[in-house]
Amino acid sequence: MLTAKDIWRDIERIREEAPLVHNITNYVVMNTTANALLAIGASPVMAHAAEEMEDMVGLASALVINIGTLSGPWIDSMLKAARAARRKEIPIVLDPVGAGATRLRTETAYRLLREAPPTVLRGNGSEIRALYYEEQATKGVDSLHAAEAALEAGQNLSRRFGCAVSVSGPVDVIIHGDSIIRVANGHPLMPRVTGLGCTASALTGAFAAVNRSSLHAAANAMAVMGIAGEIAAEKAHGPGSFQMLFIDALYELREEDIAGRLKMVMA
Amino acid sequence: MLTAKDIWRDIERIREEAPLVHNITNYVVMNTTANALLAIGASPVMAHAAEEMEDMVGLASALVINIGTLSGPWIDSMLKAARAARRKEIPIVLDPVGAGATRLRTETAYRLLREAPPTVLRGNGSEIRALYYEEQATKGVDSLHAAEAALEAGQNLSRRFGCAVSVSGPVDVIIHGDSIIRVANGHPLMPRVTGLGCTASALTGAFAAVNRSSLHAAANAMAVMGIAGEIAAEKAHGPGSFQMLFIDALYELREEDIAGRLKMVMA
Amino acid sequence: MLTAKDIWRDIERIREEAPLVHNITNYVVMNTTANALLAIGASPVMAHAAEEMEDMVGLASALVINIGTLSGPWIDSMLKAARAARRKEIPIVLDPVGAGATRLRTETAYRLLREAPPTVLRGNGSEIRALYYEEQATKGVDSLHAAEAALEAGQNLSRRFGCAVSVSGPVDVIIHGDSIIRVANGHPLMPRVTGLGCTASALTGAFAAVNRSSLHAAANAMAVMGIAGEIAAEKAHGPGSFQMLFIDALYELREEDIAGRLKMVMA
Repeated sequence: MLTAKDIWRDIERIREEAPLVHNITNYVVMNTTANALLAIGASPVMAHAAEEMEDMVGLASALVINIGTLSGPWIDSMLKAARAARRKEIPIVLDPVGAGATRLRTETAYRLLREAPPTVLRGNGSEIRALYYEEQATKGVDSLHAAEAALEAGQNLSRRFGCAVSVSGPVDVIIHGDSIIRVANGHPLMPRVTGLGCTASALTGAFAAVNRSSLHAAANAMAVMGIAGEIAAEKAHGPGSFQMLFIDALYELREEDIAGRLKMVMA
Repeated sequence: MLTAKDIWRDIERIREEAPLVHNITNYVVMNTTANALLAIGASPVMAHAAEEMEDMVGLASALVINIGTLSGPWIDSMLKAARAARRKEIPIVLDPVGAGATRLRTETAYRLLREAPPTVLRGNGSEIRALYYEEQATKGVDSLHAAEAALEAGQNLSRRFGCAVSVSGPVDVIIHGDSIIRVANGHPLMPRVTGLGCTASALTGAFAAVNRSSLHAAANAMAVMGIAGEIAAEKAHGPGSFQMLFIDALYELREEDIAGRLKMVMA
Repeated sequence: MLTAKDIWRDIERIREEAPLVHNITNYVVMNTTANALLAIGASPVMAHAAEEMEDMVGLASALVINIGTLSGPWIDSMLKAARAARRKEIPIVLDPVGAGATRLRTETAYRLLREAPPTVLRGNGSEIRALYYEEQATKGVDSLHAAEAALEAGQNLSRRFGCAVSVSGPVDVIIHGDSIIRVANGHPLMPRVTGLGCTASALTGAFAAVNRSSLHAAANAMAVMGIAGEIAAEKAHGPGSFQMLFIDALYELREEDIAGRLKMVMA
């Protein structure tokens, strides 16, 4: 269901069209996700003032909302931008960072899901479970659960909100209704670098800007994350050098890298 | 008009005096521009609370205002800081990031230009054109226009607001009234790294703190950006390693590097 | 008083328990300190909304408050989180960035000291002196004073607020009442990288989460900072590569590195 050729076609389109990806994201990762979007060939913009949400969404080809460092005025802007993106029919990616850790995050993620459902809901196993089972996390924004443990939750959220659900973990599980894709690329160093989940969400925005299948856009983005991670890890001495090499790997990615490394898991 | 000797004299003064550069800048680049200012020898401070603007400007040798991630309270602080900097007669650099992309940005840039004109207005071709022709951008914060296409706009803005206008591009164009300097240093990887335009503005603040000619401070900063970029690109494998090597290059810059690489274009 | 064995025991506990360290910190360093906490083995979370302070502190094993880019709503959240951390009896680290530079910073640091005293007050010599002598800084957030010059101030603040005081400098001075530990590890490149002071505060939070002695937690953190800095500096070509190598060094740190490099100064 996932092929190197299709992934490569998306990357070529991103490089040609340089889609503008509007990010309302957290302070920790803004630099990292902007650089990742530039490296893959997209045009990132970060903007959060309510007064400019309609103008900016009007220019954008995709909207990425990440609730990693929330506050009241940002929530208003997220809702405003998501509604504008729905009206304009551009894809929305929602990363519910820390859902389950605090009520504010869980409720904000729900509100966004209900009031302006995303094209792709992209989180880790704990976050996706928290949104379905209303589990209370005990470990902040880290994931206690493998992606597989969020399969049922993901399927139900996908059906309820009509979106793809992309769950990251050692094996990523990407869901749309009954369709499931599992991607096994990646490297154990990746959770030791801050913001790679957020980067996955940002890249999902770039792929969704050029690929109308939310399931495939989400899965292609996770495959590219994992493959670039494997390439970076080969030369990395730790998470510091990994972070730098990961951006280089995204920039230098060739079709052969994808064809040679793509690893899917059949259920 | 631009000589390696003059550029080097500015760098030596920055390294000796470590001028405090007060930045009110965007979330995406704060770490990058602070590190670039430290690497060149200046002392960066980032502060945005209205309550401390007068105190902080009181300590600073230059003020850099960058509207990349605006919101209401920050606009108030920018105006307050800019007025305090005018009263204290320290140089102000204004980077109108995304002017033309949204009304909020265009109007905020105008308001700053009118109410507390900067010493140097520093942006890309699209932003400078947007401020003069009131063009609406179609591409977020990226530049659609070469710096040269903003020459007339830059000259007019320079005359109207009494400031230097520094326009980045493959050839940078630095303008003050009838004086024009063109710098052709740089590397194609530079627009693939987020925040290098913002870094140019921050370094312009450091140069303006030690050089009373706004035209030359702005041009010297652009030459140093381009030269450090060329040095970094020689060892970089992509935008990730470029970003790291660029900071190293700023830190290690020697007079010979400037003398050997400085490239001006005569009209 | 400080031994490689004790430092290593703390690191092992951090790696095993992965304590959640809740940071309310400045925009400039969020990415850096999150990565440093991950590299040493802790779990960072950054959150600042007043509405989620109790929930997040409820999950955390330590709270780190850093006033580097203050504003009104963040001050309210800092106070709320610090009070919740006191009630829950988890350690609090306070980094009074820029105390003495502006009244807002000095007053906010005092308010936090008085209303919810930290376990460790961690700053540079100028900041610690400013809080005791009410000196007005003349140089922004840079330190004009060696840590030693803040000894008396640190001792008095330690007694008044019942906390350890950890003062960074070429020789770090860590104080609790009459107890003083001096650590001489580190490298001159460290002040040329933004946010390493803030990183020291973040790591102090991780050590305080596993070590009930505030004096030793603070001193062990400073020793690890200095030793990782020395390792990074051996391969660095400037502050850009240093920043990357420093994260790698934290991640790869072995007991032998600490035993071979730990350098204390006896008064």
